[in-house]
This record gives sequence, C-alpha cells and structure tokens, in this order.
Amino acid sequence: MENWANRKTLILGRSEMVGLLTPGEYNDCVEQAYRMHGEGRYYMDPKGHIVLDRFAGEWEAMPSYIEEPHAAACKWVSIREHNRERYNLPTVFSILIYTEPETGFPLAIVDGSYHTVMRTGAAAAVSAKWMARKDSRRLAIVGAGHMAEGTLATCNAVFPWEEVRVWSRSADTLDRFVKQQQPKYDGFEIKPSTDLEAVVRGADVVVTVTPARGPIVKAAWISPGTHIAAVGADKKGDQELEGTLLTRARIFVDDIRQCRTDGEINVPLSEGLITESDIAGEIGEIVTGRKPGRTSDEEITIFDSTGIALQDSATVPLEYRRAVEAGVGIEKKMIST
Amino acid sequence: MENWANRKTLILGRSEMVGLLTPGEYNDCVEQAYRMHGEGRYYMDPKGHIVLDRFAGEWEAMPSYIEEPHAAACKWVSIREHNRERYNLPTVFSILIYTEPETGFPLAIVDGSYHTVMRTGAAAAVSAKWMARKDSRRLAIVGAGHMAEGTLATCNAVFPWEEVRVWSRSADTLDRFVKQQQPKYDGFEIKPSTDLEAVVRGADVVVTVTPARGPIVKAAWISPGTHIAAVGADKKGDQELEGTLLTRARIFVDDIRQCRTDGEINVPLSEGLITESDIAGEIGEIVTGRKPGRTSDEEITIFDSTGIALQDSATVPLEYRRAVEAGVGIEKKMIST
Repeated sequence: MENWANRKTLILGRSEMVGLLTPGEYNDCVEQAYRMHGEGRYYMDPKGHIVLDRFAGEWEAMPSYIEEPHAAACKWVSIREHNRERYNLPTVFSILIYTEPETGFPLAIVDGSYHTVMRTGAAAAVSAKWMARKDSRRLAIVGAGHMAEGTLATCNAVFPWEEVRVWSRSADTLDRFVKQQQPKYDGFEIKPSTDLEAVVRGADVVVTVTPARGPIVKAAWISPGTHIAAVGADKKGDQELEGTLLTRARIFVDDIRQCRTDGEINVPLSEGLITESDIAGEIGEIVTGRKPGRTSDEEITIFDSTGIALQDSATVPLEYRRAVEAGVGIEKKMIST
Repeated sequence: MENWANRKTLILGRSEMVGLLTPGEYNDCVEQAYRMHGEGRYYMDPKGHIVLDRFAGEWEAMPSYIEEPHAAACKWVSIREHNRERYNLPTVFSILIYTEPETGFPLAIVDGSYHTVMRTGAAAAVSAKWMARKDSRRLAIVGAGHMAEGTLATCNAVFPWEEVRVWSRSADTLDRFVKQQQPKYDGFEIKPSTDLEAVVRGADVVVTVTPARGPIVKAAWISPGTHIAAVGADKKGDQELEGTLLTRARIFVDDIRQCRTDGEINVPLSEGLITESDIAGEIGEIVTGRKPGRTSDEEITIFDSTGIALQDSATVPLEYRRAVEAGVGIEKKMIST
C-alpha cells in the first residue's frame, strides 16, 4: 500500500504563483487543454454563473477533470465590479483547488488570479498560433487591464511581433500599461491609443479583452486575413464585435455549450444574424487535426473564447511541480487519519 | 473607503476544525440553513455529481449563498471508495472556501471533513427536533461510520435519550464505534448490534447513515409514531428504506430538486410507488411555520436529507469566528492588490 496519510497540501498565494511558468508554457498547457477537449478525454460541465441582483458581479464554480496531464481542479471565482473603489481590492478573486484524481487528495490550494490572467491570455495566443496568418506581425490588443498583460506575454511567445498596439478608453490606463509592460519587451514598441479604429485597422491579429456589453469593434475596420480572438465576452448579452463581422468570418469556439449562451456568438445567435451551422467548430478540432483552422490568407478568422475549466486543470499540475521544486508556498496538513 | 488590501485568508486543517462549535450550535446553524431555504433567501443550484467510470466514487462542487448569516461558500468534495485500503486515506475529502459576499474575498479555506460530518448529523437532529414525538427516548442509528458519530453528537443535543442503538454489518466497526463514542456520553449506554431488525424495532427515532443501494430497513419493523431521518441516500439509485414504508409516512425533504433525483425518494418515485404529490414539503417549510411537521403521535414521519450546500454556508461563518477567537490555523496572504 502507498501511504498518503501524512501528505500535506501546498498553499500558494498570488505572489508565489507569478513566474512559475513561462508564457510559452502557459500556451502549451492551454493547447493541451484544447487537445483533450477535442479528443473528449475530460469531464467538464459548462460554466455556471451565479448572478444576484444585489451584487454587481457574479460567482462561478468551475470543476473539471482532464486525462493528460491527469488532474482534477475546482476554481471558485468571485467577481465584484466595485471592489477597487470601495475596498481597494481586485475585481476578481479566485481560489483554485488542485486534486489528485485517483485519491481525491487536495495537492494544492492556490490563488487563481495570476494563473487565470495567463491561461486566458494563452487562449488568444494558442488561437493565433493555429488560426492567424503565418506572416502576422501587427498585434492589436483591445483593452489594457490585467487580461491584456497576459495576452501580450503569451502572444509574444507565438509570433515575432513588429508592432503592438493597445487600446483603452482611458489614457491613464494606457499609460500604466505601457510603463509596466514595455520594459519586458525589446522587439517592439507598445503603441497606446484611445482611438479604437486606429488600433484595430491593419492589425494581423486582434485580441479583444474588454468587459464590453455591446459591439465596439466595427466590421469595416477589419481587413481580409485578420485573426480575431474574442476573449472578453463570457456571459449572456456580452459582445465586443459588430455582428456583421461574424457573418463573413470562419468562427471557432472553445466550447459550444458555453459559447452559445455566453460567448461572443451569443448575441448574434439570439438575433438570428448567424446560426450554429455557421460555426466552423471547436478549437480542439483544429488542434487535433480534425478540421482546418484558416483555409486561406484572405479569410477572416474568429476565435470565441469563454474560458474553459480545462485550462485550469491542464495548467495547475505544472505550476504545482515548479512550486514544489522552487520550495515556495507553505505546506499545511489539511486532513488527518 | 474600507481598505481590505492586506487581509489574509485563514487556513484550517481538520484537527483545527474539530470542536470549534458545540453539536447544538451545528444544529442551530443547520436549522438556520433550512429557514433561509424556506424563506427563499439563498442561492443554490442542486448538487451536481461528477461520476466517472474509471473511479469508484465521485466529485461534487457545492457553491451556495445565504442571506443570514451573510455568506457564500464553495465546497469541493472528492469521494474515493478504495482510499482506505489503497492509500491509508479517508474515503471523503473536501475543501470548503468561505467567501465574504460583498467583496468576494476568501476569508477562509478549510478542510470540510469534520464540518461535513457534523452538519450532516445535524440534519438528522434538526429533523428530529421538528418532526419526532416530543417523548422520544430511543434512538437507532443505522450505520456506524463517521456520519454516525455526527448523528449521535447532534441528536444528543435535542432529546434526553435513554437508549441508543447502533447497527453495522461489521462487529469490528461497532466495537470501534462504541469504544470511541461511549466515553463522551453518560446519560445512556450505546447498544451495538449486527441485527438490524432488533436495532430498529421499537425505536422512536431512526437515523439511516449507510451507503446502501437497496432497502435495508423493512416497513414491518417501523411502529406508528416513529420518525426516520434518511440521510444516507444521496444519489440516483440509492435507497435505505423499503419503498412501501414511504407510502404510509408523512415525508419531508431538504430540497425537492435534489431529492427527486438523488434522495431516499428517488427510487420509489421512479418505480411509481409514490408521486411528488405524496411529499408533504421541504423541511424549511416546517421551520418557517408554513407547514406542520408531525400531525399526530401515530404518524410515521420521514425526512429525506441529501445534504444541501446551504448547510455549509450557514455554518462556516461561526466556525471561522471561533477559529479567529481561538487563534488556530494559519493566516496566508493569498491575493495581492
């Protein structure tokens, strides 16, 4: 018998989660999540949203099981939109429990905030790897919050960008973003602008990471051959792209069960602008070679990412291993007998 | 502005959770959970079961929100039936995250195993308080595992038992149970037996806490006036009571959405032995005074408990407060700005 009785659980705060993996490793883990999704080697219910009238925000419980790496995880996410001004707290909290599947033992309990930024950015990066034109050199990031940081870091691992443009409504947000991010990159200059059209026009890859609840990216701004990763929209009524753009694009989603109700496609679907037969497939079908991603240099491709729990269970095992190797975090005996 | 930026999260292992509340306090918290359920002042999806063919067991993600005490929680439960013999580990693990609802801040992350034993036992105890005859003196506990411990402790807080009988198939299990539990009680002798009929016959209150997947308690053994708390059955196909017993009892459930598919009533319902119109109501309706529990001394009453997530969110705030007062556990900064 293998005696697990005295094992402890590793507890990692946000600062200890930062830097355990390279952005490229986050991409590999998320690509693996999509691969397992494509092969059906997972368990995951569509993400549920607990939305209560009295709070601006929501909760999400995100359990999942993945066969390779063999892992289970449950992430409990709280979003509270007024946290910053009222409590000097982040808008989003999450706690991620990493469970060894055979025993159910909780190997680690970690802050999920940095992890989520990176695995969410990696969704855009992996989609660009598989769907963008190979000669893509101009990246536009629509939004300049935390998710934009993860987007830039992970997308930087997939293309040798010559130009990176970033948009926000707020010049202050843009200033902060450039000050924090530019020092990390020397291959390109980050060009901030509050002019969304100027940021988007001519970009090879556009990643939208805003909380917009209406279309902000106009169809007319998007040239043939562009790849768009629509990452921001993740609940009913959310939308970042003008609907007509979807009628002339090849669209993949992360998980159709989530996207039809919560993703970028949810509003155009409900308006009848597109139907589900207009969706080319799920990105796991591209990664597993069952469907082609981009089929021509002129095609506009769109990836609708709502964020799937498998991105967590695919990534946390490597974060855990690195943390153990580095000796960070604290170990705590949670169980007894 | 209230500055929460430097708050830490309290981490409590199983040994630190033991004894924070008295059994009577667990009963009060669970009664409050039922009250909020009855008043509709909560959010809780029915418990989902993640059952995979390759593992004997399941996972459950149990998020909930309760108005009083004002709390949210998410419990992530792993059940692995072969843990003891293969890994010297408990069959059930759970990690419970206690979230302050206004901010979403994770106040505490705790081992849920002892907590679950007590709040599950308290379900039986609270049902006995509201549904058993006031002169109940003989308690029969069907099952002698961890849940039986919680049942005995919490039921001891609601009636002055003169006789407590415990059943298990295994004489060893019974020996262990009596050795561990008898020293805690001096008002009665715990009478162990492997003869189920003898244990059940003549009891005023019968609590079933077994993993039985077929009826083990026969209708003929149950006298008029008995209260039965059927706690063990909590997934499709589970059953502890002979179905005909339900046709002559006044039945309450904890949450009809869970019980119709997972509770003691699920098999009799699916067999057509009873219909949902035969269910008198949910226990929250008794606690809030909307429906009478027992209506005569001759009536057989049954409470079907599947275990609701509100039992967690109603209880963990007081456990947290007591732990803070006692200075147990470790504090860990999980987030950063």
